[in-house]
Amino acid sequence: MTIPDLVGYMAATLTTASFLPQAILTLKTRDTQALSLGMYSLFTAGVLLWLIYGIFLENPAIIIANAITLVLASVILSIKIYNTVRQSRTSQIH
Amino acid sequence: MTIPDLVGYMAATLTTASFLPQAILTLKTRDTQALSLGMYSLFTAGVLLWLIYGIFLENPAIIIANAITLVLASVILSIKIYNTVRQSRTSQIH
Repeated sequence: MTIPDLVGYMAATLTTASFLPQAILTLKTRDTQALSLGMYSLFTAGVLLWLIYGIFLENPAIIIANAITLVLASVILSIKIYNTVRQSRTSQIH
Repeated sequence: MTIPDLVGYMAATLTTASFLPQAILTLKTRDTQALSLGMYSLFTAGVLLWLIYGIFLENPAIIIANAITLVLASVILSIKIYNTVRQSRTSQIH
């Protein structure tokens, strides 16, 4: 494995793994106040496209990394949407 | 441009652009309570490695996308670290 290959694998591992502590924190606290709905909407859509790109290229590394990130980002986005909808309903009632 | 190329460019644009609304929200509210320090530490380190990978490969798309993401992620991480340090000092004093 060349040094650029090694750097690439380390980069992919870090950016993929990074969403795990965020997903755990969000699942535990259910606090999404400081999380941007715009960010998680764009990011989740982007990761889905990266996954499709990996499938087109038949590249296992791109497929695996983005499948994991898609699950983690979807968990965070779902809780953010749930909280946003609930908050908007509550403010309409009161 | 082939369809896989187009999907790849759209994917890169979305995942890069996604950190802009988060950086704006965090700069505006300074609220980082729901943001994971672990996530932004790993993610920023990972994006730095992606940038180095792009420089190794002399690939302008990888370099530009990751340079932009590095700036945005660093802004968010800096505010998170500032808030974490300030909070820990406050809880030591009281």
